[in-house]
Amino acid sequence: MRTLRIALAQINCCVGDLAGNRDRILDGIRAAKAAGAQIAVFPELAVTGYPPEDLLLKPQFIVDGMSTLQEIAAAVEGICAIVGFAQRTGDTYNAAAVIAEAKVAAVYHKRLLPNYGVFDEARYFERGDGNAIFTLGDAAFGVTICEDIWRPGGPAEEQVAAGAQLLINISASPYYMAKGEERERMLATRAADHVAYFAYCNMVGGQDELVFDGHSVIYGPEGHLVARGKQFGEDLVVADLDLTAVTRARLKNPRGREPEQDDDEGEVARIVLGGEVTSPVEHVAATVAPVLDEADEVWAALCTGLRDYVRKNGFARVVLGLSGGVDSAIVACIAADALGSESVTCVFMPSEFSSQASREDAGALAANLGVDYRAIPISGTFAAYKDMLAEPFAGRAEDITEENLQARIRGNILMALSNKFGWLVLTTGNKSEMACGYATLYGDMAGGFAVLKDVPKTLVYRLARRVDERVGRTVMPERIITRPPTAELKPDQTDQDTLPPYEILDPILDAYIDEDMAPKDIAALGYDPEMVLRVVRMVDRSEYKRRQAPPGVKITTRAFGRDRRLPITNRYKG
Amino acid sequence: MRTLRIALAQINCCVGDLAGNRDRILDGIRAAKAAGAQIAVFPELAVTGYPPEDLLLKPQFIVDGMSTLQEIAAAVEGICAIVGFAQRTGDTYNAAAVIAEAKVAAVYHKRLLPNYGVFDEARYFERGDGNAIFTLGDAAFGVTICEDIWRPGGPAEEQVAAGAQLLINISASPYYMAKGEERERMLATRAADHVAYFAYCNMVGGQDELVFDGHSVIYGPEGHLVARGKQFGEDLVVADLDLTAVTRARLKNPRGREPEQDDDEGEVARIVLGGEVTSPVEHVAATVAPVLDEADEVWAALCTGLRDYVRKNGFARVVLGLSGGVDSAIVACIAADALGSESVTCVFMPSEFSSQASREDAGALAANLGVDYRAIPISGTFAAYKDMLAEPFAGRAEDITEENLQARIRGNILMALSNKFGWLVLTTGNKSEMACGYATLYGDMAGGFAVLKDVPKTLVYRLARRVDERVGRTVMPERIITRPPTAELKPDQTDQDTLPPYEILDPILDAYIDEDMAPKDIAALGYDPEMVLRVVRMVDRSEYKRRQAPPGVKITTRAFGRDRRLPITNRYKG
Repeated sequence: MRTLRIALAQINCCVGDLAGNRDRILDGIRAAKAAGAQIAVFPELAVTGYPPEDLLLKPQFIVDGMSTLQEIAAAVEGICAIVGFAQRTGDTYNAAAVIAEAKVAAVYHKRLLPNYGVFDEARYFERGDGNAIFTLGDAAFGVTICEDIWRPGGPAEEQVAAGAQLLINISASPYYMAKGEERERMLATRAADHVAYFAYCNMVGGQDELVFDGHSVIYGPEGHLVARGKQFGEDLVVADLDLTAVTRARLKNPRGREPEQDDDEGEVARIVLGGEVTSPVEHVAATVAPVLDEADEVWAALCTGLRDYVRKNGFARVVLGLSGGVDSAIVACIAADALGSESVTCVFMPSEFSSQASREDAGALAANLGVDYRAIPISGTFAAYKDMLAEPFAGRAEDITEENLQARIRGNILMALSNKFGWLVLTTGNKSEMACGYATLYGDMAGGFAVLKDVPKTLVYRLARRVDERVGRTVMPERIITRPPTAELKPDQTDQDTLPPYEILDPILDAYIDEDMAPKDIAALGYDPEMVLRVVRMVDRSEYKRRQAPPGVKITTRAFGRDRRLPITNRYKG
Repeated sequence: MRTLRIALAQINCCVGDLAGNRDRILDGIRAAKAAGAQIAVFPELAVTGYPPEDLLLKPQFIVDGMSTLQEIAAAVEGICAIVGFAQRTGDTYNAAAVIAEAKVAAVYHKRLLPNYGVFDEARYFERGDGNAIFTLGDAAFGVTICEDIWRPGGPAEEQVAAGAQLLINISASPYYMAKGEERERMLATRAADHVAYFAYCNMVGGQDELVFDGHSVIYGPEGHLVARGKQFGEDLVVADLDLTAVTRARLKNPRGREPEQDDDEGEVARIVLGGEVTSPVEHVAATVAPVLDEADEVWAALCTGLRDYVRKNGFARVVLGLSGGVDSAIVACIAADALGSESVTCVFMPSEFSSQASREDAGALAANLGVDYRAIPISGTFAAYKDMLAEPFAGRAEDITEENLQARIRGNILMALSNKFGWLVLTTGNKSEMACGYATLYGDMAGGFAVLKDVPKTLVYRLARRVDERVGRTVMPERIITRPPTAELKPDQTDQDTLPPYEILDPILDAYIDEDMAPKDIAALGYDPEMVLRVVRMVDRSEYKRRQAPPGVKITTRAFGRDRRLPITNRYKG
């Protein structure tokens, strides 16, 4: 066999949905066979979904997942399938089954277990210590899992030394901005270093705070791109790999030979896969999907994260408060794009402080999007609260309490609509606000999913300016973008009464949150030291609020939630 | 030196409070010296507080912590001090400094890093690989950190083989019910196995969801208890250790000798500590604090967790809604006990569904406790909501929406009091409710600290029946305990309209949550399979609510929060 046809099935698995994931995998196997592939590859933990978190501490869950793998194996004929699952054999392993002729021929155990950022794999898995290469006709390949290849050397290098021409990596790699580019660079380097084909199959879809971006790729032995799957969508990436190219390149390029003898090298088993193996007759040109630019990529990530949260949790409709400001406007646009405008209800909830501009712009946006739109004024209820609290508050001036009450009435309205009609409430706060605590707990923070939770305000504006271009018509009223941001909770309020301008705030937040820089080092970048300290204090003081925030899509390298884990009780001021 | 006097300073550190923790440690050193001790021992990560979580990812935090350790070291004279801190030297280590003559003589690095349950140490630390014993006159001791001794063998065994007569373990061991007993059993066994003194110094105090219970102990070479510190309070445990007793016991008992030669044994450095070392002249009898019974222990844990959350976060007063039910009654009693009745405000917030019994019992309890008490009726505001929502809800019957609205008005009242006066809102839901989602998000779940979050309802009743006995007078109105539990959100409602009786519910929840048993296996214990499935579904479906719950004290072996980490999006029904 000179040419091996491989199919990478980047599928959208759902955590815990063993039967559904099985069916997606079986569909992928059928599609790969129909495409004439000899190997069908599925993502890391495709059987369980990723990350299953503490489901992995339920014995029955692992047993059920292993039974599901056997059901899949029984259906594999005339093709080799590589499927991620959780195996318990003595201990629990993040595992890849290599299946041929209706049997699991071998199981590879992940060796590098990430336990940083959003990852907690050391909580669940024992490291693997074995390695193997598989021969299929005269093709030889090795299998690794995700983190295994993010460090040079390791199991892939051992596989190459044992004769692998093709390195297959199954992955569930959570998205952040520009991660696809970083990953391609790394994979190109690995392929060139090992003078081998590198086939990388990633998960796709949203799971709580994570989005997997698909974007599976195959790189050739000289570090050249062979095929690329869609970003943020299911795809079957089919490519013909010319294995003689590996031999030709290795003869010319001895870099792959060990520079020195290394006796510590892991032992690599050699496993021969059975079944009839024939090279494809007609060459199929591999597809190379284009790469989205940064703003489109973020947009697609937000749509994917929202759509999958809504659908995988069984909701049919979302509801959100439309204030006339840019955050809620963008959330409405994302919801309409992700779910269809017929699945979105927007509610305008004016008080005495709401401007005519807000009313007009909210209404115009909703009309432009074609979403369901209602106005529910809150003044009567606000007055009732003030009456009710007149005695306990006697002699006290109005302050942020009354501002929060308005936000909480609005939160209650949306939750009441949710309770009555079964809709999912979307919150609209952005990362800059969540960082500074510029949000009302149980008010504008009330809801099931926080679409912009990890999107800094300056990026919200970038997204807002792209909306019309994206849909090819006027959707976003210009004034929503150009007027100064305001919470409209008291007369003549703007965000900048409380916060520095967002063009200054966002880089400070990035330095403090994403980069973990000390305040003095941030000030040394050219910011007013007092302002830096004020911002840092706001971030530290509002940890308790963020702890009660709904989940939202990770977009940056350091998202609030499972990614940045700080104590609430914390007296460090450094 | 035949007798070594050791002082275990179980102190209440605050995460991030480097200067405060330094002062606590220096106070402990002074007190230990005043007591004539040769060695003063402080808890794990005493300098940073435990657990510092992602503060450990801030380079400046580690640098500042290491400077703080140097400040402490400079003040150590005439005594040896063992202090836990985070060290970065190449990588980051969970470390114990052995300090003598104003210098850090050596640093031990924790070798077993727990990464299960509430622990995430693999996220932050590299494992240590060194070991040492220290001689002080003719005393030889070794130091380990927490988890290091929870597995037999390991560094303590190496230290004994190298000649240590005394094994010192510094710890920050989070409390759950009966853990102290479990720990004493383990320590007694280790002391007897190693034929050595075992001195165990634990952290004390609350940190977010964790409580450290103190309860430091010293066990002798025959597994006998020598000294015990207070549970849930700071203490200095001073004891004279007769080191000749170790020699006598080892001569009689050769069990400590290696049964076979083991060449893999780690290398143990021998470090001689300087300074003048004199045995104490007069023998001091060690104190053996009594151990609380289970209900008192839980009560003390709840008081400690609440007190420290309130004080370490700078609050002066708490406020809670008193409903007339047992949960809020118990929270009021705990708050009054933990903070003083002068620091507690209780608010009764009646609706048309509130009974006369509730009004009487809430008022009586507040009067008995001597706390500030107010009534704020919610009917007017509830009517305003119904008006406001009349149009969107037209043609729909009243349902859970209207029940939730009442709970949310009450939540808003408490939050408004919090905003206006700076009080911390306590929520009153118990673990059984949190498990089943029998609580209103942004309603009775609104607040900063959830005192009973990890206390099952049947345990709430046990605590309630002990209240009067504890204070020696009638505080808890009998009817609060005897009447059927009800949310009073609609006419004639009781909890058992929705939930199985708590005596049946709680064991099912324990089996599902704490034991991770499959529903079919729970049913096999003798419960109705349909009821088990219904309970399990309630638990699974309400994960999204728990994710937005305030923190509360871990009491059981499996608390919601940092202990049980399940995905929200989860289709597993096993």
